[in-house]
Amino acid sequence: MAEVHRERRERLRAGCLASGIDAALVTRPVNIRWLTGADAVRALLVDGDRVTAVAAAGYRPEQGVTLLPAAPGADPAALLAADCHASPLGFEEHDLTVARYRTVAAASDARLVDLDRAVERLRTVKDEEEISFLRIAAEIADQALGELLESILVGRTERHLAMELERRMVDHGADGPAYPVRVGAGEHSGLAGHPAGDRRVEDGDFVTVSIGGCYRGYRSSATRTFVVGLAPADWQVELHRQVFEAQRAARESLVADAAPDAAELAARRVLAAAGHPGEVLGQGIGLEIAEAPRLGPQELGKLDNRVPVTVAVGVHLPGRGGVRIEDTLVVRPSQDGGPELLTITTKELLAL
Amino acid sequence: MAEVHRERRERLRAGCLASGIDAALVTRPVNIRWLTGADAVRALLVDGDRVTAVAAAGYRPEQGVTLLPAAPGADPAALLAADCHASPLGFEEHDLTVARYRTVAAASDARLVDLDRAVERLRTVKDEEEISFLRIAAEIADQALGELLESILVGRTERHLAMELERRMVDHGADGPAYPVRVGAGEHSGLAGHPAGDRRVEDGDFVTVSIGGCYRGYRSSATRTFVVGLAPADWQVELHRQVFEAQRAARESLVADAAPDAAELAARRVLAAAGHPGEVLGQGIGLEIAEAPRLGPQELGKLDNRVPVTVAVGVHLPGRGGVRIEDTLVVRPSQDGGPELLTITTKELLAL
Repeated sequence: MAEVHRERRERLRAGCLASGIDAALVTRPVNIRWLTGADAVRALLVDGDRVTAVAAAGYRPEQGVTLLPAAPGADPAALLAADCHASPLGFEEHDLTVARYRTVAAASDARLVDLDRAVERLRTVKDEEEISFLRIAAEIADQALGELLESILVGRTERHLAMELERRMVDHGADGPAYPVRVGAGEHSGLAGHPAGDRRVEDGDFVTVSIGGCYRGYRSSATRTFVVGLAPADWQVELHRQVFEAQRAARESLVADAAPDAAELAARRVLAAAGHPGEVLGQGIGLEIAEAPRLGPQELGKLDNRVPVTVAVGVHLPGRGGVRIEDTLVVRPSQDGGPELLTITTKELLAL
Repeated sequence: MAEVHRERRERLRAGCLASGIDAALVTRPVNIRWLTGADAVRALLVDGDRVTAVAAAGYRPEQGVTLLPAAPGADPAALLAADCHASPLGFEEHDLTVARYRTVAAASDARLVDLDRAVERLRTVKDEEEISFLRIAAEIADQALGELLESILVGRTERHLAMELERRMVDHGADGPAYPVRVGAGEHSGLAGHPAGDRRVEDGDFVTVSIGGCYRGYRSSATRTFVVGLAPADWQVELHRQVFEAQRAARESLVADAAPDAAELAARRVLAAAGHPGEVLGQGIGLEIAEAPRLGPQELGKLDNRVPVTVAVGVHLPGRGGVRIEDTLVVRPSQDGGPELLTITTKELLAL
């Protein structure tokens, strides 16, 4: 792994030099992890060939990283800035607070300039090892969900189902859940951000579950909506079919070189035909559950090969509930068969 | 509750005026929650009698709070700053990133000055309702731990025990765990930050559990160390007694008007007599598991009545394990009986 991290730091360095930035001070934990593989590093300086880290006790630097001792009460980023004589020095404006910035600026004689999310941009396209971690994260969540669906759901609370799913993911080898599992029953179904609460599952309910695994730091996300009881009502069958079709249209648009808003447009076309406003959401996923790119009109350029994204479509009818379906996929060229689906749990309307 | 929040905002306003700050822009989520009771508020402006909020969809403001509409893509803090004509305008330097600060500064014609953790300072002394929430959070964690200790531990992984404790806390009415439950078995015991891993509990192990409940946002923390098996070894009995005595000395020092480093000095005196360096840690607890004050020589002044704190003492022998004991207590005057212990689970060396 050390070689992978060295190569990533080299790309960051090259990108900075191309922007006229002599050295990069990285403070955002998820970016540091991507550049070093370590959670224990508190701040990282990439200054030419020299890579310096301040870390928590017990951290053993991999080859190519020099450790600078931490000092009690001192900001790790300020220690690195004081040790760096390159200028301009890039830092992460979107991570460093104003208070920490003052400390860093006081410690440094360099001109401080924004790195402009340089590391996030490098993280967008994944290598095949990163994608394999995402695949495992998605499989773990699929397994946990599959097991839960074989048990009795009626009478259990949303919160209890969510905790069981989290436990099962850990049992199957996850670092933990990618985010707190969300379960919405009945009138809570079909919503994006509904936290699992005290509502008990009843016969005839729609139940929406959003679940993701985390494996070696990489996170997946999937959302499914089921019906509890012997047979779904007609409106449930119809609404599920409409959301399913809209989300399928969105998914199928995710080929390399597509426009970033292709998925949203495709889903909205289907929803509009069905007469629903609905919600369509798509974005990158990896070490974070929401990262670059955003799948919408605000994103410029084209979709790159090997970019994992989530695509969600939801329709919620106030007071009645609704349907939400979400997958994690990897953008692939159409000649290679198009998008690779990582969250393979069935999207059929199961009656449980 | 609205009245409590109004009174808190009034105290913030008075404190700002005393520092020559005309209005306060609060962005730190935990501070916003304390001032409004709401998790959905994204930024809050306290400007004289006028209190304005930008919030997530669905938020209904309590009396005294005016809602300013959110705008897609716009920073909520910048929207409030643009709407405010008071100057200087205080903001939270330790929360706002440099990038957000630039947006806020561009939107405002006020002089921006640091609030200097004004809300955190107000939050330090709790009212009796806040303390009652902490008491319930601690009780829930005690219950979960008590139940676990009645089951078989040998052969189960640290991670599995941690997940079960988290689930049990939710079953007993917690919002969730105060932080991920930590379990360290054998050579991992006695450490402060050991995350639960794949190590299985074996006969003869020390097992250290750190657990806290979260109730209405308020968090407790307790750490206990047990021995697994019929009878502890002599070194285990001895080490446990020493840590217990050190932590008791620290606890008993927590009376109103004591010096902030009294607990640390008391514990260190006992540890030194036993020949251990060890670790002593104490700090405030409430909406955050670590907040003001810090119980050490760097903190000025005296301990106030009604300040909840955690006090932890740990000794770890590399390769063998160790003992860590931590409680959540409330500083009370000595004439009222001194510190109030919230985490009442036994600290005896149980052999399980």
